[in-house]
Amino acid sequence: MRINGERLKKRMELIAEIGKTLKGGVNRLALTDEDRQARDLFVRWLKELQLKVTIDDFGNIYGIKEGKDPNLPPIVIGSHLDTVPNGGRFDGVLGVLAGLEVVESFIDHGFEHDYPLMVVNFTNEEGARFPKPMLCSGGITGVFKKEDVYQLKDDEGISFIEELVRIGYLGDVKNRLKDIKAFFELHIEQGPVLEEQNAEVGIVKGIQGLSWHEITFYGQSDHAGTTPLTYRKDALISATKAINQLQNWVTSLQDDTSITFGKFSIKPNAVNVIPSEAKFTIDLRHPDEKTLRERIETMKKIIIHIAIEEDTNSHIVDLSYMKPAHFSKDLINILTDICHDMSLNLHYMYSGAGHDAMYMNNLGDTVMIFVPSVNGKSHCEEEYSRWDDIIKGANVLFHAVKRISKVIYDV
Amino acid sequence: MRINGERLKKRMELIAEIGKTLKGGVNRLALTDEDRQARDLFVRWLKELQLKVTIDDFGNIYGIKEGKDPNLPPIVIGSHLDTVPNGGRFDGVLGVLAGLEVVESFIDHGFEHDYPLMVVNFTNEEGARFPKPMLCSGGITGVFKKEDVYQLKDDEGISFIEELVRIGYLGDVKNRLKDIKAFFELHIEQGPVLEEQNAEVGIVKGIQGLSWHEITFYGQSDHAGTTPLTYRKDALISATKAINQLQNWVTSLQDDTSITFGKFSIKPNAVNVIPSEAKFTIDLRHPDEKTLRERIETMKKIIIHIAIEEDTNSHIVDLSYMKPAHFSKDLINILTDICHDMSLNLHYMYSGAGHDAMYMNNLGDTVMIFVPSVNGKSHCEEEYSRWDDIIKGANVLFHAVKRISKVIYDV
Repeated sequence: MRINGERLKKRMELIAEIGKTLKGGVNRLALTDEDRQARDLFVRWLKELQLKVTIDDFGNIYGIKEGKDPNLPPIVIGSHLDTVPNGGRFDGVLGVLAGLEVVESFIDHGFEHDYPLMVVNFTNEEGARFPKPMLCSGGITGVFKKEDVYQLKDDEGISFIEELVRIGYLGDVKNRLKDIKAFFELHIEQGPVLEEQNAEVGIVKGIQGLSWHEITFYGQSDHAGTTPLTYRKDALISATKAINQLQNWVTSLQDDTSITFGKFSIKPNAVNVIPSEAKFTIDLRHPDEKTLRERIETMKKIIIHIAIEEDTNSHIVDLSYMKPAHFSKDLINILTDICHDMSLNLHYMYSGAGHDAMYMNNLGDTVMIFVPSVNGKSHCEEEYSRWDDIIKGANVLFHAVKRISKVIYDV
Repeated sequence: MRINGERLKKRMELIAEIGKTLKGGVNRLALTDEDRQARDLFVRWLKELQLKVTIDDFGNIYGIKEGKDPNLPPIVIGSHLDTVPNGGRFDGVLGVLAGLEVVESFIDHGFEHDYPLMVVNFTNEEGARFPKPMLCSGGITGVFKKEDVYQLKDDEGISFIEELVRIGYLGDVKNRLKDIKAFFELHIEQGPVLEEQNAEVGIVKGIQGLSWHEITFYGQSDHAGTTPLTYRKDALISATKAINQLQNWVTSLQDDTSITFGKFSIKPNAVNVIPSEAKFTIDLRHPDEKTLRERIETMKKIIIHIAIEEDTNSHIVDLSYMKPAHFSKDLINILTDICHDMSLNLHYMYSGAGHDAMYMNNLGDTVMIFVPSVNGKSHCEEEYSRWDDIIKGANVLFHAVKRISKVIYDV
């Protein structure tokens, strides 16, 4: 028993027409006219399946197929329809339409289920238009306050609430998802690991914790020609030494620690002037919270040590912190069983990127399934996943939902 | 026999009022109203000493005291009256007013001289307003073409020739300095070496050669969270490794090689995106041309090697090259003798910065004398040199001019 792969592919191709870019990507920022068109199409498909459609006060859209017991919490499947600017055709939308496909497959096969099945589209997951990612899964799980979300503005100063009303997707607070039996998100990996591991399916054990910092070294600005090397206090040299030492340290750990130096600038930035200031950011990640906190401490010690060694001054600002999320062991076991039954090569991994599943994990048992990304590319028009991989992932999802869809399972 | 130190100090203080900044520096960019006022004062002082004042077609001002033989080439002493924005009270102006003081001391002491004595102010030495340094000593020595100099524009699009005419200092091409007996430039060191060496006088053997390059590393931009360290092509890591390796190499040479990384930028420059491009400049200096060329080759090999090692691409653009200048051995010997006679601690050095003397060296025997800079500071309002050090330097200059001022010396 399988989902209908051709139908899923066709819907993916149809919705990719909305906001389609010249190079075959998708430009469909949250709450734009393109997002509205994609929502309208999604709602039409939900209604064609006779699902009950509700919308909450964050614009999240739910399609519900009641089970035998309407008092049970739903099994929820979903993700988001918005994209980054000139993004791809798979990120987010796959998780929403796979949910739709799973429900339609239940109908096709005439499966009975005790728990309600629910498909969801979360608003503004990307944080590309209104600058906080996973905004509306965060909204319904208490991470963000409603008044803050409503007042968030895009680059042109237009607020979230203005746009939500304008496109006609302001719903009722009472429709918010409060309780779940389980949450599933099928998503493209957005990285190269599954491909490198020759895996067909990624079972996501959780989401890495993340810590962002801004480091500044202060030295002394002097003339390049008149100041011998030994008399200098070169802020740039302190920064490059720190980066290399941190990179070597993380590489030597040979574990899941990840470090990235994404922003870098110096002052005064002139060819013949020794830099007096060098500023850069550190993005540090680890799936285990205790380890992540240890890594942050070690990172800070290395920075301070370099400043002493180089006779410069250092300043560290903590920018943001997100603790790791760990997904349901029960659901991971179920996915593992199913992959074995289907003879699929699976790989366990932590997601390095945030997803709606991270906040849904606060509501109850949650898990994610990853589909390989060709060359690890995502958030760009080249983003691609093979259809046979996508269909394998959707089938794993389908069987997992099926396994827990009856109360008997809990006994 | 000495120069009149009080008189020199008084003139330095008077001229520092023109363009004076709140923090006691000087803001007197070339061909501004402030520059005109300083020129007017200088010309007035020249005329008070009965010197013949001429101006050439670059606005360079000459004050000439004829010697016994008017057919002999002049002994020239000078520098420049312009400053960088919010610069100091010593850079440039000292060399001009010390020239004036030397000539006045000749008059005071009733010294006869065969060679004409000449004091000169060169236009736009700093390159701070019209963006080529040593513009008008370069103009009269064939380094820059007159039409190019005239069309050079400042940040507001105003041309050199417009401003030269406006302030009334456009002179005649026939007044250009063509031949010299010798050129002397007394200048502040603008670096920390004399102070660190406990030297009272710096005898400048020449000016370091200089080579500027722009290096770019190209890697691949990926998501910080989803791309493990081992799969990355991080352009920033290539750049920081290259900088550290180059810095270690130059430090290990323990010679006069100097290297500076003055500009640095990366793309796309976002906290959670692996940099795909890192660009920086290299300022490489050495007093010996053959060695400088070897250093450039080694530098390039190191860059290319890092790119291979890191699996990124590198691109090197040569920005500019200035070969080293070597000053007159005869004049260096004379300065050495005088310092010994006066029991002054002297230090031989190469200038790391360019000066008008560099181009005057093309016309004939040239040398520079450096005065210590407190804390090595220059091109800023804190620029300071002790008056007793300045007077020592001016006396060395005075005695050197005196020694070569009669034809008998040449025999």
